Amino acid sequence: MTNSLANPVAESFQGINPTTGQPLPGIFEEATASEVAQACERAAEAFSEYRKKSGAEKARFLEQIATEIEALGDELLTRAQAESGLPLARLTGERGRTTGQLRMFAEYLREGSWVDARIDTALPDRQPLPRPDLRQMLRPLGPVGVFGASNFPLAFSVAGGDTASALAAGCPVVVKGHPAHPGTSQLVGDAISRAVVACGLPVGTFSLVQGRTVAVGMAIVEHSAIKAVGFTGSFRGGKALFDAAARRPEPIPVYAEMGSTNPVFFLPQLLKEKGETLAQSFVGSLTLGVGQFCTNPGLAVVEQSPEADTFMQTAAQFVTNSQPATMLTQGIQRAFTEGISKLTSAEGVDVLGQATSTESFANGTPTLLKTSAESLLANPVLAEEVFGPSSVLVEATSREQLLAVARGLEGHLTATVWGTDAELPEYADLLEILEQKVGRLLINGFPTGVEVSHAMQHGGPYPATTDSRSTSVGTNAILRFARPVCYQNFPDALLPDELKAANPLHIWRLVDGKRVNG
Amino acid sequence: MTNSLANPVAESFQGINPTTGQPLPGIFEEATASEVAQACERAAEAFSEYRKKSGAEKARFLEQIATEIEALGDELLTRAQAESGLPLARLTGERGRTTGQLRMFAEYLREGSWVDARIDTALPDRQPLPRPDLRQMLRPLGPVGVFGASNFPLAFSVAGGDTASALAAGCPVVVKGHPAHPGTSQLVGDAISRAVVACGLPVGTFSLVQGRTVAVGMAIVEHSAIKAVGFTGSFRGGKALFDAAARRPEPIPVYAEMGSTNPVFFLPQLLKEKGETLAQSFVGSLTLGVGQFCTNPGLAVVEQSPEADTFMQTAAQFVTNSQPATMLTQGIQRAFTEGISKLTSAEGVDVLGQATSTESFANGTPTLLKTSAESLLANPVLAEEVFGPSSVLVEATSREQLLAVARGLEGHLTATVWGTDAELPEYADLLEILEQKVGRLLINGFPTGVEVSHAMQHGGPYPATTDSRSTSVGTNAILRFARPVCYQNFPDALLPDELKAANPLHIWRLVDGKRVNG
Repeated sequence: MTNSLANPVAESFQGINPTTGQPLPGIFEEATASEVAQACERAAEAFSEYRKKSGAEKARFLEQIATEIEALGDELLTRAQAESGLPLARLTGERGRTTGQLRMFAEYLREGSWVDARIDTALPDRQPLPRPDLRQMLRPLGPVGVFGASNFPLAFSVAGGDTASALAAGCPVVVKGHPAHPGTSQLVGDAISRAVVACGLPVGTFSLVQGRTVAVGMAIVEHSAIKAVGFTGSFRGGKALFDAAARRPEPIPVYAEMGSTNPVFFLPQLLKEKGETLAQSFVGSLTLGVGQFCTNPGLAVVEQSPEADTFMQTAAQFVTNSQPATMLTQGIQRAFTEGISKLTSAEGVDVLGQATSTESFANGTPTLLKTSAESLLANPVLAEEVFGPSSVLVEATSREQLLAVARGLEGHLTATVWGTDAELPEYADLLEILEQKVGRLLINGFPTGVEVSHAMQHGGPYPATTDSRSTSVGTNAILRFARPVCYQNFPDALLPDELKAANPLHIWRLVDGKRVNG
Repeated sequence: MTNSLANPVAESFQGINPTTGQPLPGIFEEATASEVAQACERAAEAFSEYRKKSGAEKARFLEQIATEIEALGDELLTRAQAESGLPLARLTGERGRTTGQLRMFAEYLREGSWVDARIDTALPDRQPLPRPDLRQMLRPLGPVGVFGASNFPLAFSVAGGDTASALAAGCPVVVKGHPAHPGTSQLVGDAISRAVVACGLPVGTFSLVQGRTVAVGMAIVEHSAIKAVGFTGSFRGGKALFDAAARRPEPIPVYAEMGSTNPVFFLPQLLKEKGETLAQSFVGSLTLGVGQFCTNPGLAVVEQSPEADTFMQTAAQFVTNSQPATMLTQGIQRAFTEGISKLTSAEGVDVLGQATSTESFANGTPTLLKTSAESLLANPVLAEEVFGPSSVLVEATSREQLLAVARGLEGHLTATVWGTDAELPEYADLLEILEQKVGRLLINGFPTGVEVSHAMQHGGPYPATTDSRSTSVGTNAILRFARPVCYQNFPDALLPDELKAANPLHIWRLVDGKRVNG
């Protein structure tokens, strides 16, 4: 909870530079059970006030957070680079994404229609029974627990999309910082706390707790004051939180984004026309950010053909010529290496291309594997995510076998089909199958860019996430932390502004079934 | 699964007339595991076709179901009356509610904007990175398991709100009929199956399975083809399904509406002005339908005063003068009687008024109990639902104690405050507390009427439901069975109509952040 330069005690830890393996300055204490409880209780106290803030007031707060993060200047980027091994240019972009999404939610709150206000006016003369005046809008759920992700130390971490959308909804937030970047977390957490003070909000509106143990996170999820949880990370981690939340005396929703393999299908005609260019772009996507994206294309499917061979060989060449690079942590690098070993030792899997590995603390070596559709169908483990710069190329002997691979897929965040304008309609059945497996379906693109916008859906059927109805990116992320409340027969003066007869906020509403903003 | 007049076998059962205790004609077989599995598998098969039906096609299907139900004529009402003990007038109204909500969803589908279409157009020249074309809309989740409720043999049963909203979303439905009204279930189930045929839909679009055992219901929830569950009934039943769904290899959402006590607060000034009239209305609400509504007011809170005494005595008199009436089943009647016994044997609880009980198979005897706020705060069990015509009047010694009672409440479907225009603003703190506990907050009304409309919220925080973000009544009920899918960079011709550039369905969409229907 505190960042002290005193001697480390048993329950403290330091950040590790994954490029050098050396510990970084700053000692971080593992939050105690009572510190976690205090953060949750303060969040509950803060909720009674923060929930009543207007859209404009919450917007100012989110903008102030963005301003405070920018005010950290290079110190934040330098620390994030030291803790994550990510390049400065990437982190600069990620900071822009972070402040950008805070400001996007601010704008969304000022516009205000997100509350889905619905009004059914009274029908006092209706027979056989009158209809009362009914007015409904979304209201905040309560304090939210947020778990920072390792792979986006800014945009999916302490002030990331989960925090931004929960605060936008009117929910106080208790963040568990990711132990891979405690210094970055502390800097951002302190920036948010300054924004809380600057905006005159209750202190419990935001808290950061730090820790390496599972216990700290579990204590948040199990605390009765917490009403929802946002998480981005591994399947094992997300599922453990989901199970703990379901076991509570009062079960709560857990929005865990647990990653996926993001299958990409390359159709035959397009491979004929530009297979080599595609191979290069594909390898660019799978090695982007050392493969450390939830949307990394970890599975690619082609139909057997001379052009598919050329595509695979070209991709193999690009992977072989690529460079190993520092992964986020040594633990992640080890899991990646073990994942590759597990795949290569499986029946029917060959290494098609691999970069030359280098001696280092945490380098990930880009690797391209190949297997047959038959082997994959016999052993679905081959389609499971290996987090890092690798992909499995799957060769189908026929169109039907390619469809069988699609049918056999579990839930993923994304799926992609590459094809010519002429052949795409011929694969409408493939698109239909894939649509039922994913949150986002792409044509002729790579899944690794996740736009922060109104129409983005970053989610997908289990096991990609624990709740396919939700997104963790884009304006709809706010819906995770709100629930509808209906006000029946309220005097106008006692209604929230969003529901008052005069519509003082000029938001879009559904009035007697008609959408109006008057 | 089948309705046979052959001799009963070990796994068969009959409807029981709760007025007479006599078995009714018709032998119903307990669905076997393989019959349940077949229904679920057929639903999965049907989904691949039904999910693609347009809003207009699904609307025609829902309207055909309404027509088929009406075509059953008096046979349906007579059977429902025999199986439920509910009066014909009430069942006639309930049939209207049932066909009315099917037609409401049909209209909602024809209008079409419910899919929340969102379009972020491509920005190919944006720096540093272009934005792709992103289009999102809601798509159906997959086959849905629905559990019929005992207390609404039509409107919350085989063709009730869960079935209507799931079919509207594009999800096939497997219904587990409530064993208290198997004949009614079969009649309605057959009507829906005729509508399936009439509309040329795949046979698995709808199935009814019958059974008295927990195993039949569990088999539905545990089947891998089922992607969501709708339930209305007891806390024990709903929680068991929720737990089973969370334990599945692929966890799925369970929308269980498990009832509540629906606290009503009577403020002092209004009691002065019209306490006696209120007492009569209150007793009318608590005895309506023999108290067998999820929104039955089972808890009423007043501040100590001479007017509160008069109110309580008047209410007691009305209860004493009321008549016992047939409950839905003997099991429900026994649970009611046991619940009352449990309450009256608790410390600090008195019987304030009680109708004269009569010898019968399943009559429920209206009962009004009284306790102090102090006793309630010391023993929150007193606030738990007793399903039937009873209520606990709680006397608080002060305004602060009344607020303490409100703060101590768990989640409920509704809460109500009765007060004069002048005193309501003085109790804004009470309204704020209650808003955080319920799905619907009423002023000067009774919660027992649940309007089927756009602004209705029939849900509430746990333990009233397992998902406070959802409603089981009104047009928003459709959202439970849908998830967003984002289409990136799709050729216009391959997009669903809802997302095509020309907006051929003329629905409301969010295009680059602006709400437009052009």
